[in-house]
Amino acid sequence: MKLDKAYTLDEIAELVSGKAVGNASIKAHGINEIHAVSEGDIVFVDHNKYYKPTLSSSASIVIIDQPAECPKGKALIVHPEPFEAFNFLTQHFLKKLEENSKEKPNIHPSAQVYPGAHIGKFVTIGARSVIHPGVVIYDHCIIGDDVIIHANSVIGSDAFYFKRREKLHDKLISVGNVILENEVEIGAGCTVDRGSTGSTFIGEGSKLDNQVHIGHDTVIGKRCLFAAQVGLAGCVTIKDNVVMWGQVGCAANIEIGEGAVIYAQSGVAKSLEGRQTYFGSPAIDARLKMREIATISNLTRKQ
Amino acid sequence: MKLDKAYTLDEIAELVSGKAVGNASIKAHGINEIHAVSEGDIVFVDHNKYYKPTLSSSASIVIIDQPAECPKGKALIVHPEPFEAFNFLTQHFLKKLEENSKEKPNIHPSAQVYPGAHIGKFVTIGARSVIHPGVVIYDHCIIGDDVIIHANSVIGSDAFYFKRREKLHDKLISVGNVILENEVEIGAGCTVDRGSTGSTFIGEGSKLDNQVHIGHDTVIGKRCLFAAQVGLAGCVTIKDNVVMWGQVGCAANIEIGEGAVIYAQSGVAKSLEGRQTYFGSPAIDARLKMREIATISNLTRKQ
Amino acid sequence: MKLDKAYTLDEIAELVSGKAVGNASIKAHGINEIHAVSEGDIVFVDHNKYYKPTLSSSASIVIIDQPAECPKGKALIVHPEPFEAFNFLTQHFLKKLEENSKEKPNIHPSAQVYPGAHIGKFVTIGARSVIHPGVVIYDHCIIGDDVIIHANSVIGSDAFYFKRREKLHDKLISVGNVILENEVEIGAGCTVDRGSTGSTFIGEGSKLDNQVHIGHDTVIGKRCLFAAQVGLAGCVTIKDNVVMWGQVGCAANIEIGEGAVIYAQSGVAKSLEGRQTYFGSPAIDARLKMREIATISNLTRKQ
Repeated sequence: MKLDKAYTLDEIAELVSGKAVGNASIKAHGINEIHAVSEGDIVFVDHNKYYKPTLSSSASIVIIDQPAECPKGKALIVHPEPFEAFNFLTQHFLKKLEENSKEKPNIHPSAQVYPGAHIGKFVTIGARSVIHPGVVIYDHCIIGDDVIIHANSVIGSDAFYFKRREKLHDKLISVGNVILENEVEIGAGCTVDRGSTGSTFIGEGSKLDNQVHIGHDTVIGKRCLFAAQVGLAGCVTIKDNVVMWGQVGCAANIEIGEGAVIYAQSGVAKSLEGRQTYFGSPAIDARLKMREIATISNLTRKQ
Repeated sequence: MKLDKAYTLDEIAELVSGKAVGNASIKAHGINEIHAVSEGDIVFVDHNKYYKPTLSSSASIVIIDQPAECPKGKALIVHPEPFEAFNFLTQHFLKKLEENSKEKPNIHPSAQVYPGAHIGKFVTIGARSVIHPGVVIYDHCIIGDDVIIHANSVIGSDAFYFKRREKLHDKLISVGNVILENEVEIGAGCTVDRGSTGSTFIGEGSKLDNQVHIGHDTVIGKRCLFAAQVGLAGCVTIKDNVVMWGQVGCAANIEIGEGAVIYAQSGVAKSLEGRQTYFGSPAIDARLKMREIATISNLTRKQ
Repeated sequence: MKLDKAYTLDEIAELVSGKAVGNASIKAHGINEIHAVSEGDIVFVDHNKYYKPTLSSSASIVIIDQPAECPKGKALIVHPEPFEAFNFLTQHFLKKLEENSKEKPNIHPSAQVYPGAHIGKFVTIGARSVIHPGVVIYDHCIIGDDVIIHANSVIGSDAFYFKRREKLHDKLISVGNVILENEVEIGAGCTVDRGSTGSTFIGEGSKLDNQVHIGHDTVIGKRCLFAAQVGLAGCVTIKDNVVMWGQVGCAANIEIGEGAVIYAQSGVAKSLEGRQTYFGSPAIDARLKMREIATISNLTRKQ
């Protein structure tokens, strides 16, 4: 998420009552969760396991739960609860952005929104797009031109992102959105979660069949085809022209190369090269999987 | 389901025109399907296979399709069609309960119900809960405090419970409800069926991602996390802190122990111990499953 | 799809500006996609692979992208873009049919349609049927008597049918419908796509649990039971009394015989005989699958 203007380190530290350390002249221009940070961003970390990758990320200001060596040119804000501080900041800045925007959805006059569809605030819908009955588009989502969204699909629901606590889970409050490029088609009963701080993205001309689920911050290329009941976790990267058959599942934080084809019911647990065909749970080269199936079959029939 | 007051054996027998046998002084306080019965309950049985477990259950009055030895202290009502008699009684008593209740939903003033959500009769929604557009909550469901239900989810649809007949299936008419405890979050496009006569229950702080299905009378503990497209059949018991990754399926009438973790796309066909990790369809110990996968892979590559 | 009246070959050729070849006296009575054609129908073909089956199908007029030998008694219309010509014709004839029909849905006075349900144009709903809140029924669908459709299900969304092009995919525009026979029950959050030119069909007394997906032009027999999250692709034929447990998937263009039982999470990749039980992905005889599972388990534990 971009901030409404540049903020000084001290301004950010004061907003969350944290202790600023490091490059005092640094300016914050954005705030993002670790997987989506770039230079000028505020980020947070509150777990040993993630100190190193977060401190060495491109983020400029790190909200952290204990003093640490500050990387050169960057700044830290020490805070007892970085998760809460981060939630506070994203909501604070979202409100600022909303004050400067037009709340009323911006729906192109040639778009068709059926009765019973619910369009959130700050939403954009492009030319000739068709939004069927019962579709729900949460705030801030951007729908391109010539998009079709079939009945009862949900665009922009919250990221499934919780922090385990001793008593109950804390929720990372989603402030991102969903962007559907031109000529995307979404089937009936699909769900596309918004980015936690950035955008979940579906590229030009990609088509989703019914009951497909796309997790937060996942980025899908152009001209992909996903059959019914496919489910992608969060932070997945799918390149152009990928085909997934029905009920395929895809784990978080992986990448699938251009033109890959994944057969039905496969479970993709790690990144896959493009231009190949995969099958199985976990998914492997489809011909190899067929040979494995034959191996078991032969061994069993022999007995 | 509890009855509006205590009924005598003769009163129940008369309602269904059945023949009462056994302890004439017994009183009915509730009516429940076999998996949910306790003392004082009416239950039914109409199949050889279930005579013994039903007659020896804690139910006090058994509607049965043929004369049988009446267990001591209990009563039978002999009826040619126990299934139909049971449907008649549950609907009869539901109507009685409804006559004594306030039909208008009881929505806490701090709760937020978006336009396009449909709240049934006799529903309760607690403080600060958020019901997104397109959510449908069927009659009699109880939603706690600080609950979030995302767009187009359905709470309280009918149990999938049919009796095969020669011509068409007969439906067990659902009269139960769904109870969501405080701080439960339900993703978009989820479905939670109500209990057939009792309650489908999701414990405090449990979180469901999108497109999760929960069958009738299933009981889920506290602080569970279910990723997208998980499906639980009816009458499942899930203890606290269970984690299920995407597209896991779970068969009816089983129990999963506290803190169990089930990897993506697993199929749970029988009860599992807590504090362990499982994988596969059917699901087994995850490390063992990984070894099985390696076994097949090695055998195949050797050939 | 039936046409509003018989059309001559020349009339059809003129509508799409194509070149008519062959039996000039032939009359067109219908227009259908290849899998649903019968005598008197217009069909199209634009790929080497399908020339032979299309030319030898029972269709009477074939729109084709290059000159070919015309089968005796039939006719061809040569057109540079048969896919576009077909889309043009189906929409043209749908409009004709709609001009001759009553646009207002024909809902039986004893049917119950809840607020928040959306009933399309030219829809029929039979006696005593119950349409729950949030259900969306697209134009032209036919719902029988005593049907129950639970909340937020979608009946009649478009077929997932695209033609790959160099730049973006072209969409086959769906003009078919869905027919639900008497006593069908559809769970919550289901999606049933309409036929591309014909009907997707669910036979008398069949029951779908929640979140089931049925693809376009699929034909389901009587008294079938599909548990939650089952997904059938397009053009599948399911005979009477078939049972599918949760999360079963079924590939396109196959047939499942009467009384077959498919265990949970199975993936049906080819046609299956009736009166048997199947398991696995791909699905095979269930006992054989159990033996395969034992084979792997034994081999792994030995090592």
